[in-house]
Order: sequence, then C-alpha cells, then structure tokens
Amino acid sequence: MTTTQPTGSTAHAVDAGTYAEILQFYARHFQLLDEGQAEQWSQQFTEDGEFGQNVKPEPRRGRTAIAASMRRGIDRLAESGLTRRHWYGNVIAEPDGDDAVRTRYYATVFETPPGGGAARVYLSTTAEDLLHRQDGEWFVHRRHIVHDGT
Amino acid sequence: MTTTQPTGSTAHAVDAGTYAEILQFYARHFQLLDEGQAEQWSQQFTEDGEFGQNVKPEPRRGRTAIAASMRRGIDRLAESGLTRRHWYGNVIAEPDGDDAVRTRYYATVFETPPGGGAARVYLSTTAEDLLHRQDGEWFVHRRHIVHDGT
Amino acid sequence: MTTTQPTGSTAHAVDAGTYAEILQFYARHFQLLDEGQAEQWSQQFTEDGEFGQNVKPEPRRGRTAIAASMRRGIDRLAESGLTRRHWYGNVIAEPDGDDAVRTRYYATVFETPPGGGAARVYLSTTAEDLLHRQDGEWFVHRRHIVHDGT
Repeated sequence: MTTTQPTGSTAHAVDAGTYAEILQFYARHFQLLDEGQAEQWSQQFTEDGEFGQNVKPEPRRGRTAIAASMRRGIDRLAESGLTRRHWYGNVIAEPDGDDAVRTRYYATVFETPPGGGAARVYLSTTAEDLLHRQDGEWFVHRRHIVHDGT
Repeated sequence: MTTTQPTGSTAHAVDAGTYAEILQFYARHFQLLDEGQAEQWSQQFTEDGEFGQNVKPEPRRGRTAIAASMRRGIDRLAESGLTRRHWYGNVIAEPDGDDAVRTRYYATVFETPPGGGAARVYLSTTAEDLLHRQDGEWFVHRRHIVHDGT
Repeated sequence: MTTTQPTGSTAHAVDAGTYAEILQFYARHFQLLDEGQAEQWSQQFTEDGEFGQNVKPEPRRGRTAIAASMRRGIDRLAESGLTRRHWYGNVIAEPDGDDAVRTRYYATVFETPPGGGAARVYLSTTAEDLLHRQDGEWFVHRRHIVHDGT
C-alpha cells in the first residue's frame, strides 16, 4: 500500500452520509479493540483483509490471522493491568468507486496505569485504510499504520 | 445504568443528521464546562437528569444538584490556575425510540499549568449517555462516567 | 477578532452537510501542516487571510506571509527530528450568512521524539476561525489561536 500525501481540496471528499457512517464505524472499531474483543473487532475486516505496520516485517493477511495476532496482544496487555484507549481523529475520506473509500487519519493511544490517575501518550500514529462496503456495512480491506518517529 | 458492550455492526447507527447534531451538542457541552460555565452547562441536562461516576458513591440527581456540584469543582480548579480541556471522541450513537439516543464515547482531559507550555493527560475515561430530544434540542437524561484503571 | 463564549443551544448549529465538509476541511488542513506542506496548507487561507496567536504581537496577514512564517517553523522542526501531530476536536460551527461559518474548536499538538516511542502533549490550544466558502471550497479568512495557560 503506497503512502499518499493529503491534498487541500475537498473536491473529492465523501458526502455527509458516508462520512457519518465511517466515523461511527471507527468509533465501534476502536472501542471493540479497547474492550479486548479481538474476534468481533477482526470481523470488521474483509475475510481477505490485510493489516500492516511499518514496524513489522510483514502484514497480517486474512481475518483469522489478524484476530489471532490481536488476541495475543490483548492478552499480554491484560496481564500488565494497563488500560489503553485508541483515539482516531483528523479523518480524510475519499471515494474510490461506488463501494470503496480511502481514508487517512491519526490514531493515538493513551495508557492509564492500574489503579487509575493520570494517563500517558503511549503512541502516536497515522493510518491509511481502504474500506469496502458489502451489503450496507463497511469493512477494512487493507490497513497500513505508520508509527511516528520511526 | 448498565454498562454495555459496543458491537461491530453499524446497523443501529444514527443517521448523518442526528450524528452531526450530537457531535455539535457535545462540542458546546464540553467547551462550556472548560469555560467554567457550570450553570449553562447544567442546562444541557434534563430537569430530572442524572450524572454518575464510578468513583463516587451516588450520582447527582437533578439539574440544580448537578450544577452546584460542578460549580464547586470549577471554583477549586480556578484557584489552582490550571487549564483543563475535556475532549470527547470515538462517539458511538444508537437510536432508542424516536427522540432518544444512547451514546458511548471516550472523554480525555488535558491539563496545562499556569503560564502555559506542555500539557499532561490528567484523566482518561469512557462515558455512556442517554440523550433525549425535546423541542428540537438535545439534553442528557442520564450519564455514567468510568475512569480508566479504576 | 473578539473571543466569544460558546452557548449551550444548537439552534444555530450548521447542517450535517456543512459540518461534514468542515470536519474534512480541517482533517486535510492539519494533515498538510504535519506533513510539512506549508505552501499547500496556506492555500487553504483566503488570499487576504489572517492568522493570529495570543502569544505573538501581530497576526500574519496574507497567504504569502502566512506560508513563509509556517515554512520557517516547519524547517526548524525538521532539524529537530521531532514529529508533531495537530489534532482538532470539539468543533462548534455556526452559520454567519450564506457562505461563512464561525468555528470554535480545540487544537492539541502531540510530539514524538526521533526513533519513536511514547509521545508528549506539546501544546493545548483553542482556536476560532471565520471560514468563507468560495466556488464550493472552504477557506480560512481569519484565525485566532489562544495557548492554554497564557
């Protein structure tokens, strides 16, 4: 997945209905992740979905592999007692044909220690997704995450 | 108020018009709070509204009690000279009949010391609201906040 | 530009179509900034646009001066190796005639050191913009930023 540059023009922005659907899609997506629901979260990828990060040698391919990898991460996090919150924001969304949208957004992770109190900014990233609509629902077909500073 | 789990499907998401209203409602709501306008902020609750937090034994009940409690908090903060900003994000919104919406969202508080400079993440929370529409305006009927890590 | 107080009522909120346009406008705007595209970013101001901050004696006036000032800032940042992300949020938007909108929102900057890892909250601000629509595109006509704690 090629990393693209944003442009200033909103000529290719999605309409209000699609934008509201996508913002709500991401709201559910990242809340599921932070609730530790790796399997439900992975259902929001297409069956042949792909999830890559610039800090990993190879992307995960397929919903089963994506779920298994995230399950391991969530289980390790649970042992640590830390609470993480994945915020998404600054969402650019451009139509790519009738039932696909390309997004570019920020994802920042806050982390609170066991017992509560002040949080820290665990990680700041940018993300690019290719979303597909199937039977009125959105799915991630390809995702590429870049960690800031790397 | 029972804590619910988000689901992946957007089948029960609100329409774009309602979503835009609710995002703008929260934008005003949290800006009023951070401007120290406890009384105007409390007007965004229904007259019999309820505001609970998992770290407090009992919820505040009724607009008057909610305003008085927030006024005390704001006055203490003003003495400290700290500036706090309540960000809301990751907003899930589901219709609950014709004039009510259930939301689940993240609320994170940034805190800047007197004189300015770098901020810290004072608190990371999740919130659940039951919103009612009356005469075309939205109000919080019930709110429950859970502090991360507690 | 007079600093205004938010009010609780959404009676003067913009419609869903305009709100989606403005959120997408800001998404592109702040991503361009963080990608170091000072010149493209400045094209999102009107030709006679104004950009002021409470920590500076005078606002920058005109697209050329705004671009030149931001170019210097971006070049200094590039030398430091730091990555900054400008998040916008809590966007209040009110119509001001047919082709203008007044916004008031939060802008918070996260900063990641070279090599990556945890980020810090470099700065928390509030922003007020007067946006103009010309030939279907939005532009910043006036912007005023206030740094928290100053």
